[in-house]
Amino acid sequence: MEVQGVTPRSEDYSRWYTDVVKMADLADYAPVRGCMIIKPYGYELWENIKSGLDRRFKATGHQNAYFPLFIPMSFIEKESEHIEGFAPELAVVTHGGGKKLDEPLAVRPTSETMIGYAFAQWINSYRDLPLLINQWANVVRWEMRPRLFLRTTEFLWQEGHTAHATADEAKEETMRMLETYADFAANDAAIPVIAGEKSASEKFAGAEKSFTIEAMMGNTWALQSGTSHYLGRNFARAFDIKFLNEENELEYCHTTSWGVSTRMVGGIVMAHGDDKGLRLPPRMAPIQVVIVPIWRTDDQKDLVMGAIEGVNRTLTDAGVRVHVDRREGITPGFKFNDWEMRGVPVRMEVGPRDVESGTVVIARRDVPGKDGKRTLSQQELEVAIPQLLVEIQDHMLAQATEFRDAHLHRAGSYDELKDIVKDGWALIPHCNTKECEEKIKSETKASSRCYPLEENKGWNAGEATCPVCGKPAAGLAYFSRAY
Amino acid sequence: MEVQGVTPRSEDYSRWYTDVVKMADLADYAPVRGCMIIKPYGYELWENIKSGLDRRFKATGHQNAYFPLFIPMSFIEKESEHIEGFAPELAVVTHGGGKKLDEPLAVRPTSETMIGYAFAQWINSYRDLPLLINQWANVVRWEMRPRLFLRTTEFLWQEGHTAHATADEAKEETMRMLETYADFAANDAAIPVIAGEKSASEKFAGAEKSFTIEAMMGNTWALQSGTSHYLGRNFARAFDIKFLNEENELEYCHTTSWGVSTRMVGGIVMAHGDDKGLRLPPRMAPIQVVIVPIWRTDDQKDLVMGAIEGVNRTLTDAGVRVHVDRREGITPGFKFNDWEMRGVPVRMEVGPRDVESGTVVIARRDVPGKDGKRTLSQQELEVAIPQLLVEIQDHMLAQATEFRDAHLHRAGSYDELKDIVKDGWALIPHCNTKECEEKIKSETKASSRCYPLEENKGWNAGEATCPVCGKPAAGLAYFSRAY
Repeated sequence: MEVQGVTPRSEDYSRWYTDVVKMADLADYAPVRGCMIIKPYGYELWENIKSGLDRRFKATGHQNAYFPLFIPMSFIEKESEHIEGFAPELAVVTHGGGKKLDEPLAVRPTSETMIGYAFAQWINSYRDLPLLINQWANVVRWEMRPRLFLRTTEFLWQEGHTAHATADEAKEETMRMLETYADFAANDAAIPVIAGEKSASEKFAGAEKSFTIEAMMGNTWALQSGTSHYLGRNFARAFDIKFLNEENELEYCHTTSWGVSTRMVGGIVMAHGDDKGLRLPPRMAPIQVVIVPIWRTDDQKDLVMGAIEGVNRTLTDAGVRVHVDRREGITPGFKFNDWEMRGVPVRMEVGPRDVESGTVVIARRDVPGKDGKRTLSQQELEVAIPQLLVEIQDHMLAQATEFRDAHLHRAGSYDELKDIVKDGWALIPHCNTKECEEKIKSETKASSRCYPLEENKGWNAGEATCPVCGKPAAGLAYFSRAY
Repeated sequence: MEVQGVTPRSEDYSRWYTDVVKMADLADYAPVRGCMIIKPYGYELWENIKSGLDRRFKATGHQNAYFPLFIPMSFIEKESEHIEGFAPELAVVTHGGGKKLDEPLAVRPTSETMIGYAFAQWINSYRDLPLLINQWANVVRWEMRPRLFLRTTEFLWQEGHTAHATADEAKEETMRMLETYADFAANDAAIPVIAGEKSASEKFAGAEKSFTIEAMMGNTWALQSGTSHYLGRNFARAFDIKFLNEENELEYCHTTSWGVSTRMVGGIVMAHGDDKGLRLPPRMAPIQVVIVPIWRTDDQKDLVMGAIEGVNRTLTDAGVRVHVDRREGITPGFKFNDWEMRGVPVRMEVGPRDVESGTVVIARRDVPGKDGKRTLSQQELEVAIPQLLVEIQDHMLAQATEFRDAHLHRAGSYDELKDIVKDGWALIPHCNTKECEEKIKSETKASSRCYPLEENKGWNAGEATCPVCGKPAAGLAYFSRAY
């Protein structure tokens, strides 16, 4: 029996991605158009994403709550830009309990409207502010061209919703959560993102300003991996979210919303994977260390499994997520390839000779071949393995950062942009108009990703003109191919 | 300002329940028929239920996964009893992405069908068994008479789904998860449940046998708090879930399913609450210790808040969930009443004299008045508070057990049953027929709760006749009023 390999990434990126997601048992398409089944290995990866984010939300004062799946159509229609943006993507319940409903219900595509309604009930005075709420939920947006994790009709996400007394506080919150996302991406997912503002035409339906973290995938395409919106008073006006200020006057609140979804799983696959399959950063990996026993005779088996028992306990007690591959009738070589494809950061081999010498052999997923192999004494594992996992985590972030930085370029002209976006992201002064974005898209397939915060510091509007249309530039924007 | 009290439980149990759920900020009705908004305090209670169960599921070898919200109508129709049971409760999506769908989609009322489909793809041989999967999800069952947490159109739950090679193994799993639920209820929720088998007419639509944990609420009514089903080969046949056995022959699997929902929140409210409001068992309580600062002058405030800072850190480091009530412009007395109503197990008061003497005053929610008050030195808190929380947890279980046991009675005749169910549960030999259950229900409002496992040990069919209809009894069954 041989492991059926994934299509090499270098050969066909798109097929490679689907192969990896399916063969590594992350997810598969469901028998419902556009939907997916998230399998245990993929779901555990999502659970690790969740706990990394949830911890950060709680540390910044947010509380979880839960709001209904169904939203009356009249709610969604209250904010005019919102309904315009979401109407084409809605799934609509028209029948319930055997009867036709008086008012059809939308399956939530996002919950600004329902949560806006609730906030209006909950908030009375400035003492109730800020109100900092997060929801973990499923949402539905009808998807014509589904791709596992990246674009599915139903997906899982968190949506933060907050209300504030002043615009400044709401803007601060918007940026705080954007930074929280960037921090999670870099430190937990080992993905160095570019944080920036979305162009006028790409902002969230109903927002004043939308911010995004954009991640570079292994083929240099961009993946929008999280967004944070300053909603101004748009939803407060639509849902009457008011508070009595300290002068006892009624004012509208300023609100924000922000979300990260199961799309992040796809981002982790594509940012780190290689020809052999997945490579998971240790903080996200459902299995951090897989132990493969090696034996021929039953005596050897007893010996090896006994030693593994001890190693397993030591590592588990040290907080490491360990799996022992006890499968029989399968060669160690098959197992090596299998776990390599599934992206486990550290493989540990234990054979009879290792037991005799009190050692184990480890192989790093992030360093191929001999360079990644090492022999460790069993005594040092308790300390050495957690250290090694940190080292791998750091190395993967460094690799991804190096790759990203090598593919970020300033373009001095439209021709340069055209050339750069074949294999990277091009930064140009841009006019922030939809017409110009569409021209670029149709001619190069690259879209406006964001006005990066860092690069736009100290940049003055009017300093340059857009090299594509010649209009005054609003700021420096990245353009690239994107998912 | 005075705390608006809840309707005393002794006065109007039903209004008391709604008052507590709303005033303790657990949940409120949503602007969508039958749905609720779970507020942060209620959601954190649910999160504690989730983690208590999830830990137990993982310890018994189950893995989490996620399946689509939408289920094609044709799937639900595949198991004939299943569609009959669920058809009247379905919410149906008929339009998606702006178009009428070719096949309407049901919003999942439960996922045996979708997961059955997936299992048929995932299982090939006996080596793939048992397959032990759990899903945390929202489900929808159209509800005509909604009550917060107890019966809502949308609710949150977990649904376990497993497949096995033999009937025995599937039955073992069914009982293992029933016991897991009973263990969680007793040890985490401090609710001593009665585990038993559902009557023929009350079993799950599509199951061979259904088991339940039934909890006694404060008004002696029963609440079905979790169910575990042995599905035989019904869903395996409907969805073609087959495996190659060791003799290389194709066989149908035996499957199980089991679930606990947000209903458990309502159970905790009703099993433990009193005239003053909620009483939360420490393991479930979002806040285990609330610290109320007492001061008059600004100097005193600095002094008191400084001491509280230290106590807060000590307790948090000891793993206690602490909240400091820093609200200003509200009297300590108001705060005492407020936290009493919200069921926090331990209240801690710190005033200037406590700071001087290095002490704090604590009051137990489970022991009213002076008996529950004690002065502790700040040095001993690190050890004393975790111990006290265990003591309170044990005490609440003992109280609930004593209450339950005082309201369980054997009935020698139908007349005795009629009398008992006015304020308790009646155990009778029952014929297990729907007609007889309906007669009892219409004449006494009591329904068949279950054939308790414990009491039916050593009981022989035919040993007695049903005191209501005279037919041979199938076993001993509890009857009571129920939610």
